Parts: sequence; structure tokens; C-alpha cells
Amino acid sequence: MRSRRTAVVTNPAVLDLEDEQMRFAPLGPDVYGRTQPQTLLTTIEEQADPLLDLVGQHVVSIQTFRPQTLLQLFRLAAKYESNPGRYITHSVPLRGKILINAFYEPSTRTRLSFDSAWHRLGGTSINITDRATTGIAKGESLEDVAHMFNNYGDCVVLRESDSGAVFAMSQTLRIPIINAGNGIDEHPTQAMADLFTILKWRPALAKQQVAPEQRIRIGVIGVPARMRTVRSLLRILAKFPQMVEEVVVIHAADANPEASLFDPGQQEELREAGLKLRISTDLLAELPDLDVTYINAIAWVGDSFEVHGDQFRLTKDLPYKPGSIVLHPLARGAELSTCMDDSPHNWYFSQARGAVFLRMALLTCMVDRAERVMDVV
Amino acid sequence: MRSRRTAVVTNPAVLDLEDEQMRFAPLGPDVYGRTQPQTLLTTIEEQADPLLDLVGQHVVSIQTFRPQTLLQLFRLAAKYESNPGRYITHSVPLRGKILINAFYEPSTRTRLSFDSAWHRLGGTSINITDRATTGIAKGESLEDVAHMFNNYGDCVVLRESDSGAVFAMSQTLRIPIINAGNGIDEHPTQAMADLFTILKWRPALAKQQVAPEQRIRIGVIGVPARMRTVRSLLRILAKFPQMVEEVVVIHAADANPEASLFDPGQQEELREAGLKLRISTDLLAELPDLDVTYINAIAWVGDSFEVHGDQFRLTKDLPYKPGSIVLHPLARGAELSTCMDDSPHNWYFSQARGAVFLRMALLTCMVDRAERVMDVV
Amino acid sequence: MRSRRTAVVTNPAVLDLEDEQMRFAPLGPDVYGRTQPQTLLTTIEEQADPLLDLVGQHVVSIQTFRPQTLLQLFRLAAKYESNPGRYITHSVPLRGKILINAFYEPSTRTRLSFDSAWHRLGGTSINITDRATTGIAKGESLEDVAHMFNNYGDCVVLRESDSGAVFAMSQTLRIPIINAGNGIDEHPTQAMADLFTILKWRPALAKQQVAPEQRIRIGVIGVPARMRTVRSLLRILAKFPQMVEEVVVIHAADANPEASLFDPGQQEELREAGLKLRISTDLLAELPDLDVTYINAIAWVGDSFEVHGDQFRLTKDLPYKPGSIVLHPLARGAELSTCMDDSPHNWYFSQARGAVFLRMALLTCMVDRAERVMDVV
Repeated sequence: MRSRRTAVVTNPAVLDLEDEQMRFAPLGPDVYGRTQPQTLLTTIEEQADPLLDLVGQHVVSIQTFRPQTLLQLFRLAAKYESNPGRYITHSVPLRGKILINAFYEPSTRTRLSFDSAWHRLGGTSINITDRATTGIAKGESLEDVAHMFNNYGDCVVLRESDSGAVFAMSQTLRIPIINAGNGIDEHPTQAMADLFTILKWRPALAKQQVAPEQRIRIGVIGVPARMRTVRSLLRILAKFPQMVEEVVVIHAADANPEASLFDPGQQEELREAGLKLRISTDLLAELPDLDVTYINAIAWVGDSFEVHGDQFRLTKDLPYKPGSIVLHPLARGAELSTCMDDSPHNWYFSQARGAVFLRMALLTCMVDRAERVMDVV
Repeated sequence: MRSRRTAVVTNPAVLDLEDEQMRFAPLGPDVYGRTQPQTLLTTIEEQADPLLDLVGQHVVSIQTFRPQTLLQLFRLAAKYESNPGRYITHSVPLRGKILINAFYEPSTRTRLSFDSAWHRLGGTSINITDRATTGIAKGESLEDVAHMFNNYGDCVVLRESDSGAVFAMSQTLRIPIINAGNGIDEHPTQAMADLFTILKWRPALAKQQVAPEQRIRIGVIGVPARMRTVRSLLRILAKFPQMVEEVVVIHAADANPEASLFDPGQQEELREAGLKLRISTDLLAELPDLDVTYINAIAWVGDSFEVHGDQFRLTKDLPYKPGSIVLHPLARGAELSTCMDDSPHNWYFSQARGAVFLRMALLTCMVDRAERVMDVV
Repeated sequence: MRSRRTAVVTNPAVLDLEDEQMRFAPLGPDVYGRTQPQTLLTTIEEQADPLLDLVGQHVVSIQTFRPQTLLQLFRLAAKYESNPGRYITHSVPLRGKILINAFYEPSTRTRLSFDSAWHRLGGTSINITDRATTGIAKGESLEDVAHMFNNYGDCVVLRESDSGAVFAMSQTLRIPIINAGNGIDEHPTQAMADLFTILKWRPALAKQQVAPEQRIRIGVIGVPARMRTVRSLLRILAKFPQMVEEVVVIHAADANPEASLFDPGQQEELREAGLKLRISTDLLAELPDLDVTYINAIAWVGDSFEVHGDQFRLTKDLPYKPGSIVLHPLARGAELSTCMDDSPHNWYFSQARGAVFLRMALLTCMVDRAERVMDVV
């Protein structure tokens, strides 16, 4: 469209912008992935009680959620996504509420996603974006920080590379906290956004009865023992075994021997919940049968991260099953080629977009404002 | 309650969270310290005039405040604390006002406290959290920064390790500035929060006449010459000599020889105002007679800080006077044991909680919105 | 007025603040430069159509603006400046809108200016203030960041030292982006604020017909090839040749040989648009004939900056033309003496103040809320 300039320009050509307008097409509801929130909205019957579970409740692990609570969250998220402008200018459900957005581990995407979700509902936020400027860096205990937060806001969103921090703070907190990624442990709202995307793609999966032939096969490229998004995704899928034909964990045998693929007990927990798990090292052989391909190249280890499975790289020319979708929690690395972006398999942009609405739904319920946006209450 | 994970987890046990809810008890008005804002509220008669002093007024030192202005501020803070949810959803006194929250010295606690106070009253804020990203780091003068601030907001909160910065900026500012800690000099809103806590504990001290036997003895563990919170606390106490039987400054003789304990003239200023001062090095001998024990381990020296009095460590088993309270401006170090937290002497959490309401009161008056929240105007 | 303290105070004198009030004079509309927004407001006839150009439009270069659109922007800015308190408490035109304030290059002044402008109209913002905490630092592509921004807000303000970043992001964005300084390339809203100031000083220049004797001579001290503010200023002046008698580019011949003063084609572009350009190295000889003296000492080169023309230093005793004005985009260095601040030639503070109102006007139009603040729509 037009020439870019590089960082050090000695004699840049004069831009050919005269009389040219830098225009863009406005964002329609279906731009990022062919999202169908309306269908999902009508598929799930509204119930208020399961959402009331979330009042007075921390969100540390996806494990504590009941399936019916999750489905009602997805319904509310679909309601928000179906009519994004309605709630901020009318019911303003979070008016007067303060979010403490505490990111001790660097993040733009998740921090801004929560901040945006909160603001879209009419709330205000106070932000910590850098560990170096905090009392924790000077030796203040997490419990004392939690005491402080109790006085300052109505909800905490925490990202910390120390996976125990969110547990330590939850002991002292008297306002709800959301785990927005604790080391390699969990990232529960990401898992919710993942399943929300799958249900927008196949709303029929949200029905009480799913016929066996409608069940989906999900390929997960990654290491469940070391990737928080994968750990949380498997746990949320284990709550809905009726939706899942099989989960195939795909890994690089040389980089991740099967013995270190799972934590002790992790597979057993999932299988006991009814999830069918299989392990594979052959992506190309699996792809033609996968309804959902989930890839995530980043595993956090302490304060840094390492990249797994760089022999797995999703490009446009692979043998995807027709109608199947590719998901990625983003930010991406080389494992997800940008040539996928205009493929019909690209639902990862829809996944990112839906995450904001999912978080809007969760936050609304956690601070006890669900009654302002529900029809049945 | 549940196991914590540490930062580097190789084989974390699967969390035993199934069917378990991560629940918390909601925050009641009396959770942190047995606060009695209602009693204080009814003890002080409302007067509008002393608060009008604060319009068009910078807050650099506690020294410029009249006692009756401070009492009315405490009354308004008690009103806010008695009914925390009322003002943000109804009168919204700071609607349309912008706070410039300028923290050139790292701080989470004070920055978030001011930000929360402002947001609770319906205002919005713009934030500076890191000197490195500012014009000052590139050599811009404080006077020019103040000119800029005039255009951008309605009130400035400044923390700067250079104690002269707030004076320099106040020359140019045409919007009010609050000193939120200037090096080792002062921290006036902390002193207000300290005395507000004492008055919630003993509302009778706020009466015009205090019987001699009701006066309190206050032990201050610290170095008045080098701790801004101690300097400001002594100055605010000197405005109310009728409340104070005696102030005992307790210090470690080896670390802080008496000659360096006070600035030249500092003791004289306090004594001339009517404050009875005594110096001691024996904490254990003093404790049984202290109504209020104030400890603060951090002294700022330039851009860093040093710890004083580490031989003084408040634990649960010391001979506190029954019914007496312990205060600490937080964040704490080793000098205040966490074993104190569930002791009835713990009023430092109440002190931290009250600081938000005190700042709400001060900010309301400084931007000339007191009439929106007072009954008598 | 009172003594300052320095950073390391060993024995600070007790402040003489007793009974003294730290008072300030409130900000009146005419404090910073003798601004005349009302006259400008009445000089330009209101038209809605040119502002509708800005809906669905990125602001990357000043080049894409039509003169009539700029004049209507100045009119709306003058309307805001004439009645600063009106819009935030009444029409609240940006209620429910979210600004993404993305500053990957350090800046306080511009970032806070946009943030303040947005908040004054009732919007909320989410902020990036530090490249180190972002996905871009971890290798995320600008296009992916733009995809993310689409989901999070209604408008992006970007500062990036890589001049191509704003072009790269504009390819993917479906919400409008404003270039708030891209390396040495452009800073279009600064140029708008510059011309807005000139028109407040001489509203007659905004008339359709400007008599030849009313045209102004503008001296620009700087290097057009290497200063984004100068580049953008010259481009906006070239849209209004009827206002300009002549532009004199004043430079230090030893530091900046004439061959490197302009980019290839830059002079030709300006001259073809009808702007009369002359080059000079003798500031003192030019000053008595200059109606506007524009100085700006900072040129960005990659991520750092270098200072030009330090032999040019504007002080109070130079032979300025009576009634002429001095402009500077600030922050200033030694090239603009503080002794100028109380000179009648000082319009740079007015320029800084007006920049907020100019940005308010631009932002209102870009997010399609102009109809809420215009009389004719």
C-alpha cells in the first residue's frame, strides 16, 4: 500500500500521500474468524444460579468451576459479543468498581485484555505494570500486598511468574482475585476463552446431549507439564467429556520425552474425569482427523521461557480437515505462520477477540453485578 | 489451606482443588482494626469554613494546616469510611476531574492509595510510574513539568526523592499539588492518616476539652531527622498538644547517637508548640506505659534507604499496655512481626485502610468539591 | 518564596511554613500566552462535512489533511478552549470509548496530553508506557499487535522510534491510529497545535482572503530533514500558502551543511504547494522581520537524539519584531532561555495548552462523535 520507513532514515523519499486518504474498514462483528455468538446465545438457556457461584469466589484454577457455571459464562460472553456497544452506554454494570490490574510479570496482551474488558463495562482501573517499581521488589510480602489491595479495589487480576503467589495472596484477600497466569501452572481465563471459541464455532456442542458423531477430536501441540495454557485447556475439556471424541497431545519426542510430558498424576486426573487422551509425535498423520488444532509454542520456566516443538510449524499447505479450526493463545512465534491468517482455519483471531467478552462476563459475575445484565434475574 | 507452589516447579503435584471452592469472606467495615468511624463522625461537629481553606492550597507540609481544618478533614474521612459505597454511585463528587499521579520515586502503596481514592469519588487519573520514561530524566526542569501539568489535570500528587522538587513545582503550578513523600522531608498525608487512626480509636480526643487523664502517651520508634513519616507525625501531634501526655522518641543509641536524632531546631519547634518530648533507648521499659506505639523502619537517604533500629522488633509477647495500639505506615520489614497481625494491638491495617478515606476527604476539598458531600453547605 | 531542599539533606533548616499558606492563583483562560480562542471561533464558519472526512481515517501524516478540515478542527479546538469545563460534565462526547495510548518510545508530555484530552471528553484509556514490558520486545510483530488493539479499544495513539511502525500497523488496524511521533519522520498533531496557536494569535489569517500585507514571515530554527516537528510544520504551512509571506529556515552552517538540510524532494514538495522558502544562517539578521520564530532543538536519530544549533539561543534581549511570537514544541533545552517566559513573545506555553484542546477536537472527530459537540449537525 505504501512504503515503510526503517528506523534510521538518512534520506527518506517524500511520502506519496498527497490527496491520498489513510482509510480503514471499520470493524464488523464477523471480521476476526466467522464468529457466531448469536447462535451460541440461543443454544444455551439462561440460568442465574450457576453464575451466583462466582460471587465471593477467587479464580485460581479452572478446576473449581462447575460445567453449568462455565456454560452460563459462555452465554453471557456471547451476549456481550452479540451487542458490544450496548452495556457500556446503558446498564454500565461496573460503574463505580475499581480493578487492580497487577502484572508483576511482563504482559501486554492479557493486561490490556482485562483492562479493556473492565472499562467496556464502565469500571475504572489502577495498574501495576512493572515489578521493579513495587514493594514486592523491596521485599514486601505477598500477604501484605493483599492486605493493601483489599483497601484499594473491588477485584484483583494477578500475573506472577511465581506460581504460588496467587495462592498466598488468596489467603488474605477479601476481594476476588483472578489468576492471569502463574508461572507454568494455570491460566484459567485463557482456557475459558479457548472453549468459548470452540462453542461459537460449533454451538451444538453446548447442548445437553451431544450425539457421538458430533464429538470433536482436538489436537494439542505442546507439553502439558510445562505450559499453563495447555494445562488449563485440558482441565476445562475434562469437564465436558461429552463434547470430546479424543484429545491428542502432540509433542516432539526428542525435545520432550514422554516421561516428562505430564506431571505425576496429571494424566490420571484427566482420564478419571472421562477425557480420552492419546499421545502422538506425528503432526502430519494426525491433522486430517483433527477438528481443532491447538498450538502454543511458549512454555514458562521460572522468569524466562523456552520454545518447544519448533519442528511443528503450522502453514497453509498442511492437510487440515475441511471445516476444522486452528487455535493459538497468542502472542505467536514461528510455529504459527502468518500465511494462515487469511485461511478459513484461522479462528485464533476470533479467539483473541472473544477473550475480551469472556473476561467481561467473568468480571461482571465476580463483583456481583450479573443481575444488571441478565434477563432472567 | 492449600499447598503453595514455588517458582520453579519441576513435577508439581496435581492441585487438590476438585469440587473445592476458593471462597473468601467479604470485607466488612470493621475487618481491619476495630475502626469506629461513626463515633468519630458524631464527635466532631461539621463546619464548612475550615475546609474551604484547602481550595487554592498546595499540600507540601503538614505545618500549614490549622487544627480545625484537620479535624474537619478527619470528620469527612470518617463520613466516607462509614458509607464507602455511597459517594461513587450517587454524588460522584470528582466527576470530570483529572488527577496527575506523578511518582518519580518507586511506590506502589501510596500511588495506588491516591489513585483508588480519586477513582472512588468518580474521577479519572493519568499516571507517571517511572522516572526513566519522563522528560525529567532527559533534563527537563521541574518548573517546565509544572507548566505542563497545569494543562493536563486538576490536581497533582508528587513523590520525588529530591525533597526540593515539590517546592520548585509549587512555584509554577496553578493547580494544587500534594507532597506524597519528598525524600526524608515530609509525608503530610501519612501523618493525617496516622492521627485519623488514633482518633477513630479514641474519638474522645477530638473533643474541644480533653481531660488530663485522657491524654495519651505515644512512643515513636525512629529517627525524626531522617524519617519523613516521623517528621510529619511529630508536626501534626504538635498541633494538638491537648491530646498528648508525652511523646517518647525511642532510638538505638549505638546506631543513632542522640546528637543526630533531630535536625537543628526540630525539637525546639515541637516543644514551642506545646508538645512534651522525651528521648529513650529502652523500648521494653517504655512499652507498658505507651497508649500508641508507632514504628517505622525505613529512612530515606537520597534515592536509597537504610534500616534503623533493627534491635527493635515488635512481636506479640512484649509487655504492651492493655488496650493500646500499634501503628506502622507500611510497607513493613522485620521490625513488625506478622505474629502481631491477629493481636488486638494491630491497628496498622486500620491505619492503611483509613488512609484511603483520609485522602478522599483531602482531595475532595482541594479541588473545591466539598460542597457536594457536606451536609451543612 | 521559600528555601528548597536538595536531595541529600544532612541538617535541613526547619521550614518557615508556620501559619503560612502555600497558595496558588487558579488557572484562568488567558494565563498561558494571551490566547484568543473566542475570536478564532467566530472567524471560522462552522461546517460539519470537512470533519466527517476524519471518520474511518488514520492520522499518519499531516499531508493527508484538506485545508478546510484543518480549519474546522481549529474551530472545534477553539470551541473547547473557550469553555473547557462544559463538555466533560454535559455532553461527555467520548463516554464509553477506550483509547489505547501506546508509547513505545519514552514520552511524558505527548502521552499525558493525549490521555488528558481523552479523559476531558469522558473517555477511558489503557496505557503502554514502556517497550520493555511489551510483546514487541519479545518479538511479536506489529501486525499482530494491531490485531490485538482492534479488540481492545476505539482509537490508538502510537509513538515509536521506528518510523515505519505506524504504517505497518495501519495495514491491519480497523480502528483509527494517530501518529504521535515516528522517529524523525512526522508528528502531525504537533503541527496542528502549532498552526492553531498562530491562528489564535492572528485570527484574521483564518479568513478565506488574506491581504498580502497581513501575511506572516515565519522563521524556523532547525533541520527539516531530521526534525519531525519541523517536517510536519512545513507541510501544514504548505497547505495555507495564502497565510505565509515567507518561511526562513535558519540553521548553523557548520553543524548542518545546506546539502543535508532537506531530504531529496522535500523542498520541491513544499515549493510546488506554493510555500516560499528561504535558507539563512544569520538568526540576528532575520529576527527583526519574523512574525513567528519557531525553535526546536531536538532531532531524533534512531532511538537517541542529538542537539542542533546550540549557537542559537533565544533570550529576552534579542531584536524580536514587536508583537511577534516565539513557539517551541517543548520540552526545551538550553536553546530557549527561561528568561523568555515572562516576555510577551512567549506563546509556547499557549501552544502547549492549546495542544490539549486541538487533540480533543481531533479525537472527537476520529471516533465519530463530532455530532455531539457541533451546533450545525
